[in-house]
Amino acid sequence: MYWLQEMLKDVVRTRSYQNVITQNNFLFKDKIVLDVGAGTGILSLFCAKAGAKHVYAIECSQMADMAKEIVKTNGFSEVITVIKGKVEEIELPVPKVDVIISEWMGYFLLFENMLDTVLFARDKWLADDGVVLPDKASLHLTAIEDAEYKEDKIEFWNNVYGFDMSCIKKQAMMEPLVDTVDQNQIVTNCQLLKTMDISKMSSGDASFTVPFKLVAERNDFIHALVAYFNVSFTKCHKLMGFSTGPRSKSTHWKQTVLYLEDVVTICEGETLSGSMTVANNKKNPRDIDITLKYAINGNRCKVSRTQHYKMR
Amino acid sequence: MYWLQEMLKDVVRTRSYQNVITQNNFLFKDKIVLDVGAGTGILSLFCAKAGAKHVYAIECSQMADMAKEIVKTNGFSEVITVIKGKVEEIELPVPKVDVIISEWMGYFLLFENMLDTVLFARDKWLADDGVVLPDKASLHLTAIEDAEYKEDKIEFWNNVYGFDMSCIKKQAMMEPLVDTVDQNQIVTNCQLLKTMDISKMSSGDASFTVPFKLVAERNDFIHALVAYFNVSFTKCHKLMGFSTGPRSKSTHWKQTVLYLEDVVTICEGETLSGSMTVANNKKNPRDIDITLKYAINGNRCKVSRTQHYKMR
Repeated sequence: MYWLQEMLKDVVRTRSYQNVITQNNFLFKDKIVLDVGAGTGILSLFCAKAGAKHVYAIECSQMADMAKEIVKTNGFSEVITVIKGKVEEIELPVPKVDVIISEWMGYFLLFENMLDTVLFARDKWLADDGVVLPDKASLHLTAIEDAEYKEDKIEFWNNVYGFDMSCIKKQAMMEPLVDTVDQNQIVTNCQLLKTMDISKMSSGDASFTVPFKLVAERNDFIHALVAYFNVSFTKCHKLMGFSTGPRSKSTHWKQTVLYLEDVVTICEGETLSGSMTVANNKKNPRDIDITLKYAINGNRCKVSRTQHYKMR
Repeated sequence: MYWLQEMLKDVVRTRSYQNVITQNNFLFKDKIVLDVGAGTGILSLFCAKAGAKHVYAIECSQMADMAKEIVKTNGFSEVITVIKGKVEEIELPVPKVDVIISEWMGYFLLFENMLDTVLFARDKWLADDGVVLPDKASLHLTAIEDAEYKEDKIEFWNNVYGFDMSCIKKQAMMEPLVDTVDQNQIVTNCQLLKTMDISKMSSGDASFTVPFKLVAERNDFIHALVAYFNVSFTKCHKLMGFSTGPRSKSTHWKQTVLYLEDVVTICEGETLSGSMTVANNKKNPRDIDITLKYAINGNRCKVSRTQHYKMR
């Protein structure tokens, strides 16, 4: 329950959905809503309160039993139907829904996410003029100075109680670190890597290779690249959404830190460029493989390298 | 790797083992040592450095490959043999060992622990005059004032963004919370619940019912009982060991908080008495069922209750 509470207490996450729903009644009034991965049913309750005609809340875990009780306790049994089961296996009592709402995002947007399930539900049940909430998700990249933590997290293995465990360093380097980054560590601009349109994309669009160009905003060192995501609800009366970036209020998703083999010495105005490839691991599709190519041809530093990471 | 690092950086844990080994060479000099669940091989390295004749380091995870490389890098290939496999399935090249060392303890001592594996190794390979390190582990109990966190963790469910989710409270109450307790929260004495002698006990001894009597050291409220464990190495030249209690330097094991249904109003000198039953869950033996009976017949509070908890 403590993990569940951490998500609910993430006010950036939960209040954003609440604001989207309560400030945009027109999207829900007399509409049929499908809540994918409903958990406690919190989003379904917001939708019911906003005037939805009916909400189908699908949840495959034991939490579905709790959601049923919560719906009843709060007097929404007539409006919300909790269905315990997998989206891919259950049957809906209606042929089409007007709205699909879901909080499907994982760390690094795509790690252990429910996106495929949302796309499955969209293709099967969403009416032609229906909306998916959120409908846009984007992945962003920036570069940080992180001498202290890299020393602590990576160089640590050079001398562990007097023993050389540097072979573990290679493994540690390949493991993206989910952690909160201080915005003062940011050395370059922040670049949009990839936008996904949840209302149109296919499952395969979550695997991609994209280029980046990060321009230094000051003379500094770069120890790591940092990825984060934004989501937006473009069907609202005015654009709404939230960012999980280091310049925004921190969320339970934090940021994803990819340490670099090299310490890059970068001068203001110089560019670190390259590409990022994201794909599900072939053996274990729940794992995510990230390949990073980066290069700098600067005044004080010339580097070109490819690094592989695995989120698991 | 970050979890592994957290354990190694737990200096109470790792330095205790290091001190036991390096300050008690007589236990290791020219002895055959078995390291159960060796991980990176850190304990094996300590033992080899302390003069062990040979160390067999058993590790069933992929970490065994790292341990092999670490042993080689540090020049101990002649002394340490890393065996990748399950203790219950592997064969040792020697009939008997003089020392079994292991860091097998889980949260609440017994959650997801490797004790059974250590006992298996002991019964199969330990010489008659051999030693197990550590050889004693004890579970302790105390009571704390925790108004703020109980409100935050448990009462939270009464009103979640305006909805009544109190049915989740029952579930949350059943979930022991692994967290660090401030020693100023302690209201009563700390009581030894159970001592386990790893050199003699059987696997079934890890399930038990034990009585307790906690005496208030001040007028206060009790919101939770707190369990923690100590381990000791009684075969050392002088007694060594460490505590994971709230009065000691904190470890990655923290403490285990069991919230009470009642807020107990207790006066200095009054007693909260009862019993604790600990057993593996019959369906899922990795889960631990804890039953707590407690009663107080005090000046300002009379309560008698039974509560069930499940660690999973």
